[in-house]
Amino acid sequence: MKKVGVAILGMGVVGGGTYKILKEHRELYQKSYKVDLTVEVVLERDRSKALALGIEEDRIAANIQEICSNPDVDIVVEVMGGVEPAKTFVLDCLRAGKSVVTSNKELFCKYSHELEAVAKKNHCGLFYEASCVGGVPVIRSLLDNLQGNNILSMMGIINGTTNYILTKMAEEGAAYEDVLKEAQRLGYAEANPAADVEGYDATYKLSILSSLAFHTKIPYTKIYREGITNISVADIEYGKKFGYVLKLLAIGKNGENGIEVRVHPSFIKSSHPLASVGDSYNAVYITGDCVEDVMLYGRGAGALPTGSAIVGDIIYCATHTNYQYSTFKNTEEAAQSTKFVENFESAYYIRLNATDRTGVLAKVSSIFAKCKISVAQMLQERGPVGEDGATPVIFITHVTRENNIKKAVQLINESEEVAKVAAVIRVVS
Amino acid sequence: MKKVGVAILGMGVVGGGTYKILKEHRELYQKSYKVDLTVEVVLERDRSKALALGIEEDRIAANIQEICSNPDVDIVVEVMGGVEPAKTFVLDCLRAGKSVVTSNKELFCKYSHELEAVAKKNHCGLFYEASCVGGVPVIRSLLDNLQGNNILSMMGIINGTTNYILTKMAEEGAAYEDVLKEAQRLGYAEANPAADVEGYDATYKLSILSSLAFHTKIPYTKIYREGITNISVADIEYGKKFGYVLKLLAIGKNGENGIEVRVHPSFIKSSHPLASVGDSYNAVYITGDCVEDVMLYGRGAGALPTGSAIVGDIIYCATHTNYQYSTFKNTEEAAQSTKFVENFESAYYIRLNATDRTGVLAKVSSIFAKCKISVAQMLQERGPVGEDGATPVIFITHVTRENNIKKAVQLINESEEVAKVAAVIRVVS
Repeated sequence: MKKVGVAILGMGVVGGGTYKILKEHRELYQKSYKVDLTVEVVLERDRSKALALGIEEDRIAANIQEICSNPDVDIVVEVMGGVEPAKTFVLDCLRAGKSVVTSNKELFCKYSHELEAVAKKNHCGLFYEASCVGGVPVIRSLLDNLQGNNILSMMGIINGTTNYILTKMAEEGAAYEDVLKEAQRLGYAEANPAADVEGYDATYKLSILSSLAFHTKIPYTKIYREGITNISVADIEYGKKFGYVLKLLAIGKNGENGIEVRVHPSFIKSSHPLASVGDSYNAVYITGDCVEDVMLYGRGAGALPTGSAIVGDIIYCATHTNYQYSTFKNTEEAAQSTKFVENFESAYYIRLNATDRTGVLAKVSSIFAKCKISVAQMLQERGPVGEDGATPVIFITHVTRENNIKKAVQLINESEEVAKVAAVIRVVS
Repeated sequence: MKKVGVAILGMGVVGGGTYKILKEHRELYQKSYKVDLTVEVVLERDRSKALALGIEEDRIAANIQEICSNPDVDIVVEVMGGVEPAKTFVLDCLRAGKSVVTSNKELFCKYSHELEAVAKKNHCGLFYEASCVGGVPVIRSLLDNLQGNNILSMMGIINGTTNYILTKMAEEGAAYEDVLKEAQRLGYAEANPAADVEGYDATYKLSILSSLAFHTKIPYTKIYREGITNISVADIEYGKKFGYVLKLLAIGKNGENGIEVRVHPSFIKSSHPLASVGDSYNAVYITGDCVEDVMLYGRGAGALPTGSAIVGDIIYCATHTNYQYSTFKNTEEAAQSTKFVENFESAYYIRLNATDRTGVLAKVSSIFAKCKISVAQMLQERGPVGEDGATPVIFITHVTRENNIKKAVQLINESEEVAKVAAVIRVVS
């Protein structure tokens, strides 16, 4: 039987999950795939973490060189996260002829070209299914199932922490800060939650997924980003009255005018398949010119779901000799000629806190007309239920352009008849 | 650039879709995958079908030998359906060294071992993503993403025709026969609808999917099968009162006592992700011991969605030199030792038409007790709204065994106090 040795860099949640899966399924893999997968060595600064998992003392490497020079190691799993030292370690391993399986979205999003060039030069595999949406098979689906399509759009709930927070806010009517604290207590959110709640994590993943979908390189810096820190329960509740559910969506579109990529809170119709993706579940909704609509749904994080994606890549790597899977279907040159749409089209939810109820409608209507915004629906709550005793007035616009909305918000805020624009949320269909 | 020639056997709906996709995306594939894919020749008895698609006269083969001996043909797409002559043609092509991409679930389900042995012997690829659930990437996900899991269960809506019929019955309160006629008029159902409505089509697909999931061969003859021809609108309506949606589910489970495979009408909670899969959409809900729950959703049929799966396989085949993808991870031997569970566990919906309302409860309760069935919920409609002036009485049972229900149904039907058991539908969670 073919023997394949694995090294794991980082024995945190995902490293531990991967170790557990490999250990407990060893016989299944021997029987089903004719391959004997063993964890030969791990790298973890905090040795107690590795020891607690039952790893023998002499299988904890002192440094990356011990792994690079170990002839029994064929595949290195990098689950440390962050750019350094992960990047240096991955490059060292590739140069030593080891194939790499990584869950590191930040590293792969920022340095995929460099990593892939080194992997190619050294005839090594480089696999990253676990970098996006945990156990949900989205990367390989884009590469090996939907690759015959012109992908027209993708919309994803690709961050579990924010989806958990928004689900709880909607279900319990609890404030953002309170739900965040609860999520931190349960381990669903980090002590410093910025990467999740400010949308960075989703941006890294969207960069990888949209690069694959649109056959070019989409730098994460080109992605419009807006987090959920300013979302109020009031807006979630008003949205329900219009039949909307609030989600942090990662959106990619490939149209005539170029590519449009953005991560922001979005209202979607409660009948949309993404609307019922709750708690820490993730899903990606892809539309291709041949396949029409496809949705891939599941656990976007966690020791075993992410470990499932990593082990899937390990088995693929161990049983295939052709590593074309690991390369982006694009070049740096393609990226430079890619056009990006920034003044994108959307419908909008706009909540005003009106101090002068009789005057506001006339004034706002004239501003909307001036900015070429037409209103689809309006809701005016009776009585002073808003902040500062003001009356909330809510507009849902027809599809318009981002710059028109920006201009209108500015004009409304400058107007004396209207207290302020309290919320602007894009409505996605 | 690498040139890869394609032949298509059968220019029906899916053959036409595949031809269209390859023709219209040729430049995309050249640019993205560095491969020039051209349809060199087609085989179609009805030449007018091929000519109508714009295929030149001299590219319509007179027989399969012309394709087998054509040195420009590398990959053969078989989309004829049915066992013969498809099987002979596929074997001829494999023996001539051509790789085969097929959408033929019946052929693959019944003869996969024979086809795979010949493919392997001749170093050819054999790809079948399009055989199950159209454009939804379920086969490759099982093979290359979830393959590290012990798959515990799968539940699928894998037949578009029946899902369309059940959705319309639920939405419009229309009778089965009327909706079937409408579906036939729209081309969603065949003139002879038995393969779909009797559940055969779903059985073939479940055989393929569960074989992959459970690492053994599941013959379709081992699958319990019940179609939708006896479903009445009344039961769909009563089910709603309990919060259920009726679907034709294909279910596979791998438990301690063996493997359980079945296709039958099923009530599921309206909050289950599968419940909102409407019209001709399909979805497969998979639970693995690592990945937890994953759902793959999309178009299960149609020229372009199924063509998308076929072209995905063609590009994979044209750009990879390693065909391990195409083989089942099992052997004939494994299949012979596989244990199947027939007396499976489920909750049940049972509708009785009671002629003696006062007597029925006492009698039925004693029968249920005798058969070790405990009742979770009961609904008795006022007045004689059932057939023959009888009163419908509905029971939802706790989980019990199939044989207990069979026994209870027999005893109730033999009892003089109860007119008859009008419907028995499994409740799945």
